[in-house]
Amino acid sequence: MQAEIRRVYFLSNGTAITAETLGHSLLAQFPKLHFKTKTIPFIDTLEKANAVSAEINQGVDEAGELPIVISTMADPELKKVINRSKALILDPFGDFLPRLEKILNTVSSNLGGQSHRIASPSLYESRIDAIDFSLIHDDGCKTRNYNETDIILIGVSRTGKTPSCLFLALQFGLKAANYPITEEDMESEQLPVPIRSFTNRLYGLTTDPNRLVHIRQERRPNSPYASLDQCRYELRVAEEMYYRHKIPFLNTTTMSVEEIAARIVEDTGLHRVETASLSQTDQAI
Amino acid sequence: MQAEIRRVYFLSNGTAITAETLGHSLLAQFPKLHFKTKTIPFIDTLEKANAVSAEINQGVDEAGELPIVISTMADPELKKVINRSKALILDPFGDFLPRLEKILNTVSSNLGGQSHRIASPSLYESRIDAIDFSLIHDDGCKTRNYNETDIILIGVSRTGKTPSCLFLALQFGLKAANYPITEEDMESEQLPVPIRSFTNRLYGLTTDPNRLVHIRQERRPNSPYASLDQCRYELRVAEEMYYRHKIPFLNTTTMSVEEIAARIVEDTGLHRVETASLSQTDQAI
Repeated sequence: MQAEIRRVYFLSNGTAITAETLGHSLLAQFPKLHFKTKTIPFIDTLEKANAVSAEINQGVDEAGELPIVISTMADPELKKVINRSKALILDPFGDFLPRLEKILNTVSSNLGGQSHRIASPSLYESRIDAIDFSLIHDDGCKTRNYNETDIILIGVSRTGKTPSCLFLALQFGLKAANYPITEEDMESEQLPVPIRSFTNRLYGLTTDPNRLVHIRQERRPNSPYASLDQCRYELRVAEEMYYRHKIPFLNTTTMSVEEIAARIVEDTGLHRVETASLSQTDQAI
Repeated sequence: MQAEIRRVYFLSNGTAITAETLGHSLLAQFPKLHFKTKTIPFIDTLEKANAVSAEINQGVDEAGELPIVISTMADPELKKVINRSKALILDPFGDFLPRLEKILNTVSSNLGGQSHRIASPSLYESRIDAIDFSLIHDDGCKTRNYNETDIILIGVSRTGKTPSCLFLALQFGLKAANYPITEEDMESEQLPVPIRSFTNRLYGLTTDPNRLVHIRQERRPNSPYASLDQCRYELRVAEEMYYRHKIPFLNTTTMSVEEIAARIVEDTGLHRVETASLSQTDQAI
């Protein structure tokens, strides 16, 4: 028999990214169950809130089981409408804001969608700069400005360098370059010239050979490039290179882009730049 | 007098991205206060948990004010250590998991760092494919495969097309291309040839002229490109183009990359692909 599939809503009067992120973390604690999720952002009028609530209630009638709602509605009136729905309502704002108000001895603004607005134009710009930098310095394309990088990821083709760099830039505001280790580099005991004088900024990626075969097969099916022998050889030589030059490295086989980026930041002691808003006081634009 | 700066910790035995995201949302509700935040991910041993707890307590002694802790620790033993710290502990797992267990009639796995692991290799690959696609189709570089795109962002230089596309790919798994509107295009009443037959996938970005001046000045100070007249002209013509061809568009002046991306998905009815893990049952690698 098909497992019961529980309906889950992520609701917000902002982007719903917070509700989604928290919701995924909670649901991941029930690995054997299946969930059918729906994200509804920007619920910012009474009309929209009523429509969403009606949709949630409709689900109860059909399935006979209560849906789950993870809601970060901040507006008190709209929140009231959502929280009256026939569902298990998990409302972190409702639970945590009163406790924060008490310890901070002030009231909260009850404004939705604050966390993903621009707190500070200069912070926004440094984040965009990091993204620009990481794009320009993708895949060893440009190597002249490595003295400006926060980190240079190295590894053989398709070990996750590019998405990891983009995530480091987007989420953590870091200038992350990446440089591919190619066949020629493997025959030398020395590091490739462009990265040789930046050993303290290098960070290696590696993965399981079978996983690499699978990923490369998607790109160039049945090519020597995607063969198990070739993948094994390249990964072995790259790992020897990391050991020889004392370059920290990570096996990314089962890791998501988020986890790779967070591990790199942790391992290297880099500073996670606050790309999300904390204070609106310097919101000048 | 300098405003009191409250210390805030985001703690997790995983990436801490969930704790950080929720924490930023909560703190953003107190726009007049200042916070000093510290993220500590991968607290996965008793030793680390004790060290973090000691650090939190140390802060109390010095400042005389309770720090705030937003913690998504899942391991019960480690959580216990953290929750004994002298701080206001906000623990969404502790509050919400028992309620979820009750309605789902099962126990949670108490495993940390599940939400940012790979749930499904195929999902991981489709996300990486989206990133690859968006990189290749940045800035009108390659236009042949527009029939595969989920969306094509258009706009004049420096309106946020590139970071928005990358975020759409990373966060929502969407294949997002972008095409710049250049001076030549502005003199024509028609859409540029490469995008002309894809009007139903086009989405325009615009911004405030003064904001655009500021951003362009950073890149090419005192150039005609960064002048107020030029910025005003380009934005006006671009907006006329959006109206003429019935292209939906967004003014991104005060928006973060997250908000731009979430608004675009909402406006266009695109499906947010679940890039984060929901079920570990198909975790095969």
